[in-house]
Amino acid sequence: MRPIPNDVKRVTCIGTGTIGGGFVAQFLASGYDVTAYDPGKNAQDFLERLLDQAWPLLEQIGLRPGASRGRLRFTQDLEEAVSGAEFVQESVPEDLELKVQTYKQLDELLPNDIVIGSSTAGFPMTDIQKRCRFPERTVVTHPVNPPYLIPLVEVVGGEKTDLAVLDWTAAFFQAAGKRVLRMEKEVFGFVINRLQSALFREALHMIAADQATVTQIDECITHALGLRWACMGPFATFHLGGGDGGLGAFMDMVGKVEWRAPYVTEGPLPDWTPALRERILQQAQEVIDGRTISQMIEERNQTIIGLLKLREESRLNASKRT
Amino acid sequence: MRPIPNDVKRVTCIGTGTIGGGFVAQFLASGYDVTAYDPGKNAQDFLERLLDQAWPLLEQIGLRPGASRGRLRFTQDLEEAVSGAEFVQESVPEDLELKVQTYKQLDELLPNDIVIGSSTAGFPMTDIQKRCRFPERTVVTHPVNPPYLIPLVEVVGGEKTDLAVLDWTAAFFQAAGKRVLRMEKEVFGFVINRLQSALFREALHMIAADQATVTQIDECITHALGLRWACMGPFATFHLGGGDGGLGAFMDMVGKVEWRAPYVTEGPLPDWTPALRERILQQAQEVIDGRTISQMIEERNQTIIGLLKLREESRLNASKRT
Repeated sequence: MRPIPNDVKRVTCIGTGTIGGGFVAQFLASGYDVTAYDPGKNAQDFLERLLDQAWPLLEQIGLRPGASRGRLRFTQDLEEAVSGAEFVQESVPEDLELKVQTYKQLDELLPNDIVIGSSTAGFPMTDIQKRCRFPERTVVTHPVNPPYLIPLVEVVGGEKTDLAVLDWTAAFFQAAGKRVLRMEKEVFGFVINRLQSALFREALHMIAADQATVTQIDECITHALGLRWACMGPFATFHLGGGDGGLGAFMDMVGKVEWRAPYVTEGPLPDWTPALRERILQQAQEVIDGRTISQMIEERNQTIIGLLKLREESRLNASKRT
Repeated sequence: MRPIPNDVKRVTCIGTGTIGGGFVAQFLASGYDVTAYDPGKNAQDFLERLLDQAWPLLEQIGLRPGASRGRLRFTQDLEEAVSGAEFVQESVPEDLELKVQTYKQLDELLPNDIVIGSSTAGFPMTDIQKRCRFPERTVVTHPVNPPYLIPLVEVVGGEKTDLAVLDWTAAFFQAAGKRVLRMEKEVFGFVINRLQSALFREALHMIAADQATVTQIDECITHALGLRWACMGPFATFHLGGGDGGLGAFMDMVGKVEWRAPYVTEGPLPDWTPALRERILQQAQEVIDGRTISQMIEERNQTIIGLLKLREESRLNASKRT
């Protein structure tokens, strides 16, 4: 029987890689009992290392009352994993058939009103839920890596998803301390990845055409665009680029120029060839600059935590002064 | 006679709107004598207000020795503006014919070896320089708003630009305290705007198709993607999304899924209709949330300054610990 969103105490995470493990960290820090399931050989070890890295940061942000790593139970028995679950977050590898199968199993094992959210980065729930007896309780709950630091969770249903389940899921993630981006329409890739992929696709085109290197593209973000997007989205950004006229003036200006100009590569994506893959991996070494992945993750996490605080202060100060 | 990059003392800025005025602030803070020219009726007033807002921040970041607002001279006489200039930054409105005309005039007024950089956000220097007698000294020096806070300046030449001028320009902007993104190929829109426009174009498509609102798109950036791009570019980001396998593992995963998926709108840009413009402006009010433009600018600027410091610390700490 589905509890009301604020009464949820037991959450199950299916799949504990970078994303699923990140959700485990988030739910533990939010004070839930978390059961984690992953059939992988070194899954538990990977999860423990992820928690070792995430936990001190979550302590820094502030744990919910009762939050404890001791409330994590790891199992490789699916039936045991879901027993007593009041919400299930699925984060198995990004393979549609695997997700359909997993949902079919979960649908059979779980009481028919327990909500099953998917971390899928792009498959429509309409395709994932198709073999469920109770598809109305299935919903996409798409996070952004790392799920324990990035506030946003994209919530969108499939054709058969019950609207009440969307409401419940949005309320549950708000109670869990996340910021919910609720989408009314099922768009392939959802909104976050549509935006992210549009930029990445253009980057791939430029690298494939030898117009730019991985370093040049990453520098455009790190030392330019990312500094603005750290503060606001593209529309707010352009609102500040049009002088006193704001967004309207800016759009009149670009309406004359940019959108008519061949600014963006049209046509299909570049072929994902081994050669392109090799070029990217090789060029990326300059960006990685000898840092280990965990060093880079720590660097990123520290920056994100500081930035979240920084933005609150900046907004406060700006409102005070002006 | 062109001085060596580190000996430049006198800079002229042609056009003093948001971008040109931002360059004035940057050059003043870097300790140059700056002559500013803009024929606009309220140009000087706009520039003074821009400096009133920028200067306290530049003081916070740290002014170069001798830097002073007192070293600014504003004139509406072009000939007077360029006399004695050792570098000229052109930031007239984004209109190709106007830029071609302006370059023709500057080319006639200036000694033939003085470098003329353009803030153009997209016109190839090959098109801008075509009526110059000495096109070899013309170069695109494209900033990102606000030029006095965003480190990156994109430096790219046209067909007739002298390679030595590209070297000189890169060295000059480094001396002026900027980070130079030197591009070898002249790509329409350059790299920064290709990336930015790819994302913005996708946003326009989603808004035009009523798949997402301005607020939803801005939230994807503010509360998700922007937090990561505040730390690193897309390739480094994905390097941290592939578990222990890093970028290679990530690309193998997405190679299977995302690039084959219809992730990004293909085909031409959506029509820039008055209706679309209206929809965007109306939806944007939710993002603006009653803040004045100068309030938002101050908020953004404070966040960018703090973020730049924060990133240095995060990198230091991460390297120490790991």
